[in-house]
Amino acid sequence: MSAPSELEDLIELMARLPGLGPRSARRAVLHLVKKRALVLTPLADAMAKVAETARECLNCGNIGTEDLCDICQNEKRANGELCIVEDVADLWAMERAAVFRGRYHVLGGTLSALDAIGPEELRIPKLIDRVATESISEVILALNATVDGQTTAHYIADQLEHRVKVTSLAQGVPIGGELDYLDDGTIGAALRARKTV
Amino acid sequence: MSAPSELEDLIELMARLPGLGPRSARRAVLHLVKKRALVLTPLADAMAKVAETARECLNCGNIGTEDLCDICQNEKRANGELCIVEDVADLWAMERAAVFRGRYHVLGGTLSALDAIGPEELRIPKLIDRVATESISEVILALNATVDGQTTAHYIADQLEHRVKVTSLAQGVPIGGELDYLDDGTIGAALRARKTV
Repeated sequence: MSAPSELEDLIELMARLPGLGPRSARRAVLHLVKKRALVLTPLADAMAKVAETARECLNCGNIGTEDLCDICQNEKRANGELCIVEDVADLWAMERAAVFRGRYHVLGGTLSALDAIGPEELRIPKLIDRVATESISEVILALNATVDGQTTAHYIADQLEHRVKVTSLAQGVPIGGELDYLDDGTIGAALRARKTV
Repeated sequence: MSAPSELEDLIELMARLPGLGPRSARRAVLHLVKKRALVLTPLADAMAKVAETARECLNCGNIGTEDLCDICQNEKRANGELCIVEDVADLWAMERAAVFRGRYHVLGGTLSALDAIGPEELRIPKLIDRVATESISEVILALNATVDGQTTAHYIADQLEHRVKVTSLAQGVPIGGELDYLDDGTIGAALRARKTV
């Protein structure tokens, strides 16, 4: 064994994080031990705090510290718009863009026949329930532009047809994108959705 | 703000680790929250434990949980060989190779005129002290084959001249290495150090 067992335990746990392997986990742990007061102790405290307080919002699936997340508690965001995202990371990405002022619904994944994930495994029944009980004027599908994401979007659009207006994010050339580097599908979608200048 | 402040604090701290940036720190924290019982709580506990127990060995600079590390406490490793490494990570790498049965001395860096790191900033005075007081028959320089590493190796060899036998790791073609992909310096070193078959 190359390190004391306490350190080996920590390295083994760190190596389970996405983006870190055994080698980078060792590097991170050595860094932690060297910067004990500055990083290790605050990090251990922050983790213990999050382990204790973080919970899923019972309404939308976002992560917060109470039964209802900050966004579901904020009355100013009850503007009738409901944005459907796959994951909390996507919700955070939308919030960083700071352009959406409504509320969210986190599915917790996408439909996948291969992985046996049907509507009941996601938060889709809860979504249909919310559309029926909350005053929602528009459901905005902000799912990833992948095959699974788009399959899920179609399924949700079918389920909500005639109940509420359903829209989805526009597809086209990303800001700063160069045509030469874009795939054919994106160029095709951008051409079909062309706008009068 | 996109996440509750407890999570933002944790993301900010995680992003300070080597190998993780803001985006991968967010991914790691989401993973932690989802795998609370399996990863987050054990990780917080392991970190608190390391923060409390880990300390530098007073003799060699290795990381352990007592004043003297496991290797310095192990009488079987007092075979007269002392391996000099730059960093604890290098000591771990040597231990993983499981070919060295002596003791170590961790310098804690390399000499660097640019960063104003002289012998006093490293554990070099302690090394000279150890060579004078412990029964050491051979000092093996296992420093990185970088400019700073080799400068430091030359300095130490000078300091210990006539006091003890000083050797250094061989340079040559790494196991599995292909000549076509090796740099000129390595090929030159391997040719100069050629051996009779």
